[in-house]
Amino acid sequence: MQIIHAAIEVFKRKGYEASTMQDIVEETGMSRGWVYLYFSSKEDMMQAILVTNQKEQDTLFKTLFTSEHSVWAGVNKIFDIMEAQLNDASDDLIIAVYEYFLSGWRLSDRRSFLDSHFEKKHESLFYYLQKGVANGEFKPEVDLEVIMKMITSYFDGLLLHTKSAGCKNVRVKEQLILFKSILKKVLQVHDLEGDL
Amino acid sequence: MQIIHAAIEVFKRKGYEASTMQDIVEETGMSRGWVYLYFSSKEDMMQAILVTNQKEQDTLFKTLFTSEHSVWAGVNKIFDIMEAQLNDASDDLIIAVYEYFLSGWRLSDRRSFLDSHFEKKHESLFYYLQKGVANGEFKPEVDLEVIMKMITSYFDGLLLHTKSAGCKNVRVKEQLILFKSILKKVLQVHDLEGDL
Repeated sequence: MQIIHAAIEVFKRKGYEASTMQDIVEETGMSRGWVYLYFSSKEDMMQAILVTNQKEQDTLFKTLFTSEHSVWAGVNKIFDIMEAQLNDASDDLIIAVYEYFLSGWRLSDRRSFLDSHFEKKHESLFYYLQKGVANGEFKPEVDLEVIMKMITSYFDGLLLHTKSAGCKNVRVKEQLILFKSILKKVLQVHDLEGDL
Repeated sequence: MQIIHAAIEVFKRKGYEASTMQDIVEETGMSRGWVYLYFSSKEDMMQAILVTNQKEQDTLFKTLFTSEHSVWAGVNKIFDIMEAQLNDASDDLIIAVYEYFLSGWRLSDRRSFLDSHFEKKHESLFYYLQKGVANGEFKPEVDLEVIMKMITSYFDGLLLHTKSAGCKNVRVKEQLILFKSILKKVLQVHDLEGDL
């Protein structure tokens, strides 16, 4: 949708706090009244962006499950997508999203939205990994939920560092290779053909 | 120092963006002129806080090296400190620090400060871990710098998640146990007495 697209561009450019509804209205090229018909604040827009991202993530996991020959192959694809996102210096939307999370920490309305967003984001990854347990690919050493939450904590920290210090300084490529090898051990990945 | 202490209290309570010099002056109970004699902006204060934290971290590593019987025992202490920080719900300064990092992403003056802060923060952990390599405790599977950067990425992500979603939801305790066991393998920790 055109308004959301305009909001994303403005958030990328200026960050969340510094952006105003006026900036977004100008970016759409539409009238103020038209934009306000759909969204009454930049907060509404950010939530719409997050909900859309969440749906895209759900779709991604469903697609991976049908298109890849194993759940572990799908996890490898997720690492590739993560690496591409980290390498894309122009993708500053994530900065605005973290800003939104952090600055909203004290606002109780935003808190409940963020809590449910956090839950949903984790659920879809959890269900995906669980399929690997169900089909015998993974025999996790510890509670799968803890592994899944470690993955998302790590990925968010890596994004935060990369966006603040750059891919080269953070040694993203090598970090991801290391973390994937760790995950393979922790999940005890068995190839579906039988070998470890 | 009293002014820094007041700034920390204000940043914890209101976050970085929402805080003003006026708030901090009021918190100190001093005159405006007196406060401005030392700091001309909240930016100056945040940088002073970060530099102080950095020095405390350096001191911590030095203390650990002399007080603990091994580098790995020191790493265990670092995990304990991390867990205490994560469990301390009132420690919201970290939220303000991340906010400062993220909102400053586009300001070139702040960028160079943040880059050098990032470097220094990593250096002290790196030198500490390197002592474990030097004394034969650690035989890291991969480049030690990559392991060290993975640790800090993970810790920052864990902090971010815990401060947004709470310790219980994030399953901090279990995550830290898992991550420590991973680190022990990746560093290939050998007990100084000989056993693995």
